Amino acid sequence: MLEGVWAHLVYLKDIQVKIDSEFSIIKKYLTGIGASYLKQNGIKLSVGDDCAVIAAKSKLLISTDTSVEGVHFLKSMQPDLIAYRAVAIALSDIAAMGGIPIAYNLSLTIPRANSTWMSVFKKGLQKISKEYQIVLTGGDLCKGSLQISVTVLGKPGKKILLRSGAKKGDILCVSDELGKAYIGFKQFKTSKMINQKTRPYLFPKAQINYGKVISSYATSAIDISDGLIQDLSHLIDRSQIGCTIDLLKVPVISSKFFKQCLEFGDDYQLLYTVPPKRLASLKRSLKSINKKCHTIGVMNGKKLEILNNSFQSLKGWNHFS
Amino acid sequence: MLEGVWAHLVYLKDIQVKIDSEFSIIKKYLTGIGASYLKQNGIKLSVGDDCAVIAAKSKLLISTDTSVEGVHFLKSMQPDLIAYRAVAIALSDIAAMGGIPIAYNLSLTIPRANSTWMSVFKKGLQKISKEYQIVLTGGDLCKGSLQISVTVLGKPGKKILLRSGAKKGDILCVSDELGKAYIGFKQFKTSKMINQKTRPYLFPKAQINYGKVISSYATSAIDISDGLIQDLSHLIDRSQIGCTIDLLKVPVISSKFFKQCLEFGDDYQLLYTVPPKRLASLKRSLKSINKKCHTIGVMNGKKLEILNNSFQSLKGWNHFS
Repeated sequence: MLEGVWAHLVYLKDIQVKIDSEFSIIKKYLTGIGASYLKQNGIKLSVGDDCAVIAAKSKLLISTDTSVEGVHFLKSMQPDLIAYRAVAIALSDIAAMGGIPIAYNLSLTIPRANSTWMSVFKKGLQKISKEYQIVLTGGDLCKGSLQISVTVLGKPGKKILLRSGAKKGDILCVSDELGKAYIGFKQFKTSKMINQKTRPYLFPKAQINYGKVISSYATSAIDISDGLIQDLSHLIDRSQIGCTIDLLKVPVISSKFFKQCLEFGDDYQLLYTVPPKRLASLKRSLKSINKKCHTIGVMNGKKLEILNNSFQSLKGWNHFS
Repeated sequence: MLEGVWAHLVYLKDIQVKIDSEFSIIKKYLTGIGASYLKQNGIKLSVGDDCAVIAAKSKLLISTDTSVEGVHFLKSMQPDLIAYRAVAIALSDIAAMGGIPIAYNLSLTIPRANSTWMSVFKKGLQKISKEYQIVLTGGDLCKGSLQISVTVLGKPGKKILLRSGAKKGDILCVSDELGKAYIGFKQFKTSKMINQKTRPYLFPKAQINYGKVISSYATSAIDISDGLIQDLSHLIDRSQIGCTIDLLKVPVISSKFFKQCLEFGDDYQLLYTVPPKRLASLKRSLKSINKKCHTIGVMNGKKLEILNNSFQSLKGWNHFS
């Protein structure tokens, strides 16, 4: 149909064998994932038609996150790790709104189709679908440099947590220690091993249960993907209220790599604000899921003030700005 | 934080200037698009938080389509054309279900951020958002080789049209002439001009109004993106019923390029089935939106039979299979 090398490059999709292979790959490796959760999540129709159909009874949360090889994940990572991580990172946005994920669409761009690669990739999708009880509802498969774009859908928890809801006097909290992803990344870079230390980087957890609990108490929330101060600055911007944060109170996994623990992000812990009078009951509720709340600051003033800070600059903040 | 060239490549996102530029690009070029349609489409929260929030009263349709440079669009295309085309193609899946689009998320991967490129890209998004009255509700911006992944959301029309609903005796119809995209592509390749001939390729129309009308009559539908016979084969597969199609009845823009008109796809016309007794009223309804229904076959038997066919093979079908 098309002439010349140029046309061949532009319309690869029009070569029958490619088309066949695209359809058969989708059928074999990207269909039926999370099918056990169709009913409980109100998914009326999944992969296989022009659209998926979702029975949404209330409001629906939606977010898209893209992971690019060499930027968001290491070239050396196995396809199941790549799949797991790409979905987990997207799910974290649902956690940050206090929501419960129900489904995801996945767009996968790969340089070439390879059945071994695809079957390992599928394992990663199955693992995360099971862990969060979510259905793969659709997507696309393309030829190109490796990247994965994930769109997650969720239903709200008790309340939808926005970045913009922090009020003067609210206590700034973080869900857990920071820096596990950094230490894991450092280790994996050299060892290429999956172990206790590298796991937090390779298999980040979206804090869904944590988000669900705090959705009854918090006034605002964000997930820490770009580093504590960077993400705090979004919360400050959107809420139009300053913050005094005490670095000595920030829980980190390694005091030796304190700065990196703050800056690396990728821990996907939640950063949120709570009115002081709600703090005690929040702590009790968190105890029931074996979690803690770490209070690290207070919302006040017009800008960010960092106490006990020995750094001239921190990602998201500059001493001279 | 990270040492060496390798680490630099892997964690580009951790360089402050990159982060700032990502946020400022999103703010400047990817925020507020389609904001006039927030209320009418039930969008409670758009770009700027961890998720968008959609008030879904009924069922929701969702579909993802990715466009890769050099595969789905020409390298020579301007960014506004790329943006428009990427969203239109995704919207076509909503049309194929008889639905009405309300919003879309967009993941854009670009080799480098460039304000001229981004402002022209934004124009394409604004054009299509206005045309279909849809809101850009979120997305992601990454560094990498150029590609755009679009997830569209829609509400159902009168009935949700599936690929699987065709019944024995139903009439196979197509919404309009095929081949305009092929002729447009051929012209644009050499002329690089936007004119009457190239427009159908550059600005494909998602057949939303057409889909809405047929959603009261049709038993199944699919959009023609991969070529008539290829997409018909999906309808046959999913409906578990054969089809006799008469090629002489298929409306095409050029008899000289008959085969290409059938095979090229990219016209995004609708292929659908209607019970014979509903045909007359369907035609009357289509007349009210100045559209026609072209009857090209009938659903019967167990496989695909092609009448008046002079080709040994056609994309999606082989004489010897």
